[in-house]
Amino acid sequence: MSEADRNFEGSIERLFELLRIPSISTDTRYKGGCNDAAHLLQSQLNDLGFAAKTRKTAGHPVVVAHGNRNKGEGLVFYGHYDVQPVDPIDEWMSKPFEPAIRNSNGEKAIFARGASDNKGQLTTFIEALRVWKKVTGELPNGISLLLEGEEECGSPSLPAFLEENASELVAELALICDTGLFDSRTPAIITQLRGLLGEELEIQGPRVDLHSGMYGGLVRNPIILLSQILAGLHDANGRIALPRFYDGVSEPDPEILKQWRDLDFDCEGFLGHVGLSQASGEQDRLPLEILWSRPTYDVNGVWGGYRDEGFKTVLPSSAGAKLSFRLVGKQEPLEIRKSLRSYIRSCLPPDFEVDFTGHGAARACQMSTDHQLFDATRQALGTEWNSEAVFAGCGGSIPVTAHFQDILGMDSLLTGFARDDDNVHSPNEKYNVDNFCKGIRSWLRILYAVS
Amino acid sequence: MSEADRNFEGSIERLFELLRIPSISTDTRYKGGCNDAAHLLQSQLNDLGFAAKTRKTAGHPVVVAHGNRNKGEGLVFYGHYDVQPVDPIDEWMSKPFEPAIRNSNGEKAIFARGASDNKGQLTTFIEALRVWKKVTGELPNGISLLLEGEEECGSPSLPAFLEENASELVAELALICDTGLFDSRTPAIITQLRGLLGEELEIQGPRVDLHSGMYGGLVRNPIILLSQILAGLHDANGRIALPRFYDGVSEPDPEILKQWRDLDFDCEGFLGHVGLSQASGEQDRLPLEILWSRPTYDVNGVWGGYRDEGFKTVLPSSAGAKLSFRLVGKQEPLEIRKSLRSYIRSCLPPDFEVDFTGHGAARACQMSTDHQLFDATRQALGTEWNSEAVFAGCGGSIPVTAHFQDILGMDSLLTGFARDDDNVHSPNEKYNVDNFCKGIRSWLRILYAVS
Repeated sequence: MSEADRNFEGSIERLFELLRIPSISTDTRYKGGCNDAAHLLQSQLNDLGFAAKTRKTAGHPVVVAHGNRNKGEGLVFYGHYDVQPVDPIDEWMSKPFEPAIRNSNGEKAIFARGASDNKGQLTTFIEALRVWKKVTGELPNGISLLLEGEEECGSPSLPAFLEENASELVAELALICDTGLFDSRTPAIITQLRGLLGEELEIQGPRVDLHSGMYGGLVRNPIILLSQILAGLHDANGRIALPRFYDGVSEPDPEILKQWRDLDFDCEGFLGHVGLSQASGEQDRLPLEILWSRPTYDVNGVWGGYRDEGFKTVLPSSAGAKLSFRLVGKQEPLEIRKSLRSYIRSCLPPDFEVDFTGHGAARACQMSTDHQLFDATRQALGTEWNSEAVFAGCGGSIPVTAHFQDILGMDSLLTGFARDDDNVHSPNEKYNVDNFCKGIRSWLRILYAVS
Repeated sequence: MSEADRNFEGSIERLFELLRIPSISTDTRYKGGCNDAAHLLQSQLNDLGFAAKTRKTAGHPVVVAHGNRNKGEGLVFYGHYDVQPVDPIDEWMSKPFEPAIRNSNGEKAIFARGASDNKGQLTTFIEALRVWKKVTGELPNGISLLLEGEEECGSPSLPAFLEENASELVAELALICDTGLFDSRTPAIITQLRGLLGEELEIQGPRVDLHSGMYGGLVRNPIILLSQILAGLHDANGRIALPRFYDGVSEPDPEILKQWRDLDFDCEGFLGHVGLSQASGEQDRLPLEILWSRPTYDVNGVWGGYRDEGFKTVLPSSAGAKLSFRLVGKQEPLEIRKSLRSYIRSCLPPDFEVDFTGHGAARACQMSTDHQLFDATRQALGTEWNSEAVFAGCGGSIPVTAHFQDILGMDSLLTGFARDDDNVHSPNEKYNVDNFCKGIRSWLRILYAVS
């Protein structure tokens, strides 16, 4: 462990180098940044003694690195080097791609886009490998790495890559470091994740923007129509109103529900941190149950008409939105997409058209905890954090876990060291320095436990 | 008339000079453009022999020019030198502030922002005065001009200016050239206009943008809430669902309704021009009745969350919209604003807040046609256009007509030479060269009729 601490200044430096690269995968202007991040990781891994390559996909490249692992055995660590967009840029206190260490509620934290998700978290694993190598002179046995660059836009190219390279990539278990602590002191292993369906639509009515005085009353307003469509996706009870949407949603196992209840989740603190005092949603369910095992519908973006300063009495020709659904149980994303598109088409009056763009589709995922690494990891985390590690769910989606199951027949062990207040996907994303350090030490303990 | 034609090349040049000035009143970046447009008009009018001054208001200046008119008598011509914003800029075939003459459906037209609304139209009157002066050596009797720079953002400073200068500005009648032909061959005098209420709202929920996986289900989505609010302003029958909204809306006089029916409005052509085949709205009413004497609700702009390329699974902290209502009869804009804000506040869940910005409020306006100028103008227009002029309504709002009635006790005679396909408030705004020319000649005939 002391070697990890001696090495820590260098760990920060290497993380900063990665954080300086603007690898926003969803925006084609940052294609160069994605390539640069892949090549930096490849070179870090080669330096450690891995056989690492940056490999082409239809989208951003994948870095694959092999140590001395027999096919079908050992562990594959998965991470992603791409990051979310940075808007609204005005709200950042320092530039998103110029990492800086500042105080955050009395603790030192690294501020940058990707500081936590996922550059900081994946670096905990690589730095643990570096310490291992330094202490033992060699790499741990049976480890490969797979680092992709499209996680933040739904991993569109990964399934084909996994299929083409299945026999090379299959292992006993995947390791993923893209989740958080249960609370600031309690480590967690995530055993179930929600799925995700992303969809974009643009409604087109009149051919051009119209004067609302000259046409208003005779022509349907595309923004109002869009609002009706978006509002209509909830019924009067707040349930999602798509036909057959709840097919495959099941009630959580009473045993699991009891575990979640025992976790004594501080919902008030969780919401208070973002300026809210009350939970919305299904009032007869536990907050953790809502976050981990109930599906959602969100609108992630909306646009139409005049949005600048002042006023313009325009009846706009079009309006659009980006929607997402978090999925649970056996909900089928592609069936839901079909149902969604058909509902939206059924709302259109004559003369109106809609364009759809699909943005990722991943079913929910549940892990078996039978592999001995689950218990070993629980022990290792408990020792490092001085607090018993819990098996928890996660409201977010890591679509790759479903791909690993479907394509490679491989479950994932997910653990990570992020905190609720890391501002993941928001301005001023951060990763506490102490979490980064204890993350590296946690992986060292896990590697030791399985060696 | 032949002097008007000999003068026409110069008329085009002077109009182009005015069109080159970017006088977008709603956008503070164009304050200089508004000032420049005012000063250009002041200098044109001084050159013609008017006593013209650019006078300060709380917003953009007003140009007032007096010829030899006795107080309380004669006519005040009203126009506005400000223009609408130019977005979406990509859809313009030539730059909005670089006027160009191109063919449009076989006729020559002047393309520029303001070509029709209102720089082209107000210039028809000034150029008619110029011809009159050239032919007779003097200005016509009893004419003043009042040219403002805030019409496109609801004329916020004009009422105070009219009140402060009421005795100077009052006349028998106002002349306004800001409306269109009834169809491409039939001139019209507008005797009733809809009013307008503009309102902007921004809803704030969580303090920061959230990860939709980490919070989705427990936190209301501000865009969905906004959609519910916007959709909820229509009831199931498409009527506007604000309490007391229809107070003051009366059925049109059967005599007027008969006149409108006799106009034989080509609704199919009107909608076909913008790519639509069917009218929406109240199916038991004439299209002209809907456009001229029924109130509307439109959303002019909406925004929230992630709107760039790709996808971002954000649960945004805020969402906003700009709304407008066209008003008729005796509907009270300020009462409706109160009712709207109270409805929206009533939709907010705990922890959510809303900010409102009012954007103009003007009641609808109906003119008495008793003044002899109405019949004289009808005659003059009929002669110039070789087609009987009609008394018509207008779906748009020219709030100054209500201010003239309320503050100066003065009705307005509204006529103009714009066409339905002038793309007013849209990209590629135009004014047909022939309409500009016949507009100048029309005013000459009207001036002659009253001289």
